[in-house]
Amino acid sequence: MEQTPTVRRKPTIRDVAAAAGVSRGTVSRVINGGHWVSPDARAAVEDAIERTGYTANHAARSLATGRAGSLAFLMTEPQHLLFDDPTFALLLRGAAEALSKRQMTLVLLIAGTPAERANVAHYVSAGHVDGVLLISSHEADPLLESLMDAGIPTVACGVPLGHRSEVLSVSVDEAGSARTMTAHLRAHGHRRIAMIAGPDDTPGGRFRLVGFRDEMGDDFDPELVEVGDYSQDSGAAAMERLLERAPDIDAVFAASDLMAAGAVQTLRRAGRRVPDDIAVAGFDDSGLAATHEPPLTTMRQPWEQLSERMVTLLLDAIDGRAVEPVVLPTTLVVRASA
Amino acid sequence: MEQTPTVRRKPTIRDVAAAAGVSRGTVSRVINGGHWVSPDARAAVEDAIERTGYTANHAARSLATGRAGSLAFLMTEPQHLLFDDPTFALLLRGAAEALSKRQMTLVLLIAGTPAERANVAHYVSAGHVDGVLLISSHEADPLLESLMDAGIPTVACGVPLGHRSEVLSVSVDEAGSARTMTAHLRAHGHRRIAMIAGPDDTPGGRFRLVGFRDEMGDDFDPELVEVGDYSQDSGAAAMERLLERAPDIDAVFAASDLMAAGAVQTLRRAGRRVPDDIAVAGFDDSGLAATHEPPLTTMRQPWEQLSERMVTLLLDAIDGRAVEPVVLPTTLVVRASA
Repeated sequence: MEQTPTVRRKPTIRDVAAAAGVSRGTVSRVINGGHWVSPDARAAVEDAIERTGYTANHAARSLATGRAGSLAFLMTEPQHLLFDDPTFALLLRGAAEALSKRQMTLVLLIAGTPAERANVAHYVSAGHVDGVLLISSHEADPLLESLMDAGIPTVACGVPLGHRSEVLSVSVDEAGSARTMTAHLRAHGHRRIAMIAGPDDTPGGRFRLVGFRDEMGDDFDPELVEVGDYSQDSGAAAMERLLERAPDIDAVFAASDLMAAGAVQTLRRAGRRVPDDIAVAGFDDSGLAATHEPPLTTMRQPWEQLSERMVTLLLDAIDGRAVEPVVLPTTLVVRASA
Repeated sequence: MEQTPTVRRKPTIRDVAAAAGVSRGTVSRVINGGHWVSPDARAAVEDAIERTGYTANHAARSLATGRAGSLAFLMTEPQHLLFDDPTFALLLRGAAEALSKRQMTLVLLIAGTPAERANVAHYVSAGHVDGVLLISSHEADPLLESLMDAGIPTVACGVPLGHRSEVLSVSVDEAGSARTMTAHLRAHGHRRIAMIAGPDDTPGGRFRLVGFRDEMGDDFDPELVEVGDYSQDSGAAAMERLLERAPDIDAVFAASDLMAAGAVQTLRRAGRRVPDDIAVAGFDDSGLAATHEPPLTTMRQPWEQLSERMVTLLLDAIDGRAVEPVVLPTTLVVRASA
C-alpha cells in the first residue's frame, strides 16, 4: 500500500544528514536523546534540522527509521477476559493514554488460542509494530519465545517466569504485597487464615503465595490454600472447598478482587457474615473493590504508573538506551471487608 | 524489521509462477477464487502449487501479495466506551472469532480524539492492515474521509451517514425495527409513548426515530422526544426531562438498552413502577437487557451475524469481488418491562 503524499513531501532524516554532512545514525542519535554525539556534530545536525525544516514527527520518523509508530498491547489470555477482568481494562486504558500522549498508535492484539498466537507472531515479526507490551504471560508461553527469537523489543507486565533475566518487565512487589496484607489480617487477630492463590504459572499466582507463606511462618497450613484462575467463579468454588475442609477459617486472602468477590458470594450462601464471621481481603483495587458490598480491603496496584512505565521502558529499549526492570510498590487499602 | 527465517524458507507465489510459466497475477487469481483464468492456466498453476509445496497460508500470502493478513477493528468513539457500552464488546468478540477462524489477525485501533485519529489514519495508510471494520461512525467523521482518500477497503457497521453510496456497510433495518417496537407498545394499549432517541448524526439515532414517528402517525407528539448519547446516564437525564414535561407518559422506547436502564433508574426514583405505571422498552439486547431488573423488552440486533457479515464483505471487497451493502433483520424480544 502506498504512503500518503503528504508524508512523502516532508524532509526526511536523510535530507538532514546530507545537509549536516554526517551519517543518518548521527542524526538519529541527536533526535533520540543525543547519546554518543560530539558537540560539533550535534551543532551541525541542529543547524541542518532548521535549514531543511525537518520535524521529528512519527510520520516522517517512520519513513526514516522503518518504524511503525505503534506499540502492541498483546494479551495472551482468551479475549473475553478483556471484558470480564477489570485489570486488563485498566492496563489498556493506561497504555492508550500513554501512547496517545506520544502521538503513537496502540494496536491491541489478542493471542488466546494457538491459531491466534501464530497469526500474532507473524504480524509482529513483519514490522507492523515497533515493540510489544506483553500482558499476562503464563510461564512457558510459546509466544514470548517467538518474540524473543524474532528480536522484537518487549516489556512484560509482571515478572516473566522462566525468562526473568532475558525479558524486561514492569511488576509490583508481589511477595512483599502479600506479606503486607497477611500481616494486616494477623494484626486484627485472625489466626486461621486461608489463601485463594492464582495459577502457579503466573507471577501473581506464585509470588503472592510465597509472601503469604513467609508471613504466616509456623502458622502456615497448606490445607488452607486453594488455587483459582483469578475469576469470580473460581473464587466462589475455591471458597466452597475451603469451607468444607476447614469450617473454622476466620479470614481469607484472595489473590484478586474478583476471586474475593466470589468468596463473599459463597460465604453469603453459607450464612457467614463478612467481616463479622470471616474477613475477606482481595488484591488489585481494580474498581470493583470500592463498589463491592461490603467494600473490599485490598492491595492497590498502581495501574496508571504500571502502564506509563511499561511504555517508557519499551520506548527506551527501542531507542537503544540502557534499561533495567522496574518494580513498583503497592498500597494497602483498608475498607469494610477485612 | 526482518521477517522470521521460517517465513523466508516457504515457497512463495513467485516460485509457483515460475514453475507454472505464468504471471504472479494469474497465480493470485487462481488462489483467490479463480476469476478470469483460462482452464489451461488454472491446471498449470494447480500443478505448480503441488510441485513447489506452496501453501496459501497468510504468512506466505502476505509476502506474495503485500497483504498484512489483518483487519482493523476501528472504534471512532472514546475508548472507555469499549468497556462501558456492551454493544462494542459484542461486535469485537464476533469480529475476533470471525478472523481467528480465517487465520487472520484482528488489530484493534481506537480513534476517539483528533490526535488518535491522525495516528490511526497514518498507521492504516502505511499498509499495516488490509482493510477496516469501521465501528460507530458519526456523520462527517473526518477519519472516514481519510480512509476513502487513501483507498483503504472499508466496511462500516451501520449505514455511514453522508457516504451511503460510497462506503460499504452492514446494518440492521433501523426504521423497521423501531416501527415493530412502537407497534408492540401500541398493541398493549399505550397511547402517550415517549422516545429517548440516539444522536441524530448516527444511523441508530436518526432512523430509529424515523420509524417511531412513522408508526405513531397522527399520535406523534414532538414534545415526547428526548435525545441521549446511548449511555445510561443520558437515558436517566432524558427521562427526567420527559417526566417533567409530560407526567402522563405511559410508555418509553429508548434507542439503546443502556438508555432504557437509565430511564428505569429515574422512574424508580420518581416512584413509578415499571411496567405497571410506565412500560419501558430498549434496543440492542446487549446482554444487559436479560439480566436487568425488570428484564427489558427490546429489539435484538444479530450481533454475531453483524460481525461475521462485516468480515465476509470486507474480505470480498479486498479480493475484488462484487459486493453489496447488507441489511439484516432484528427480532422483537418481549420480557417483563413492556
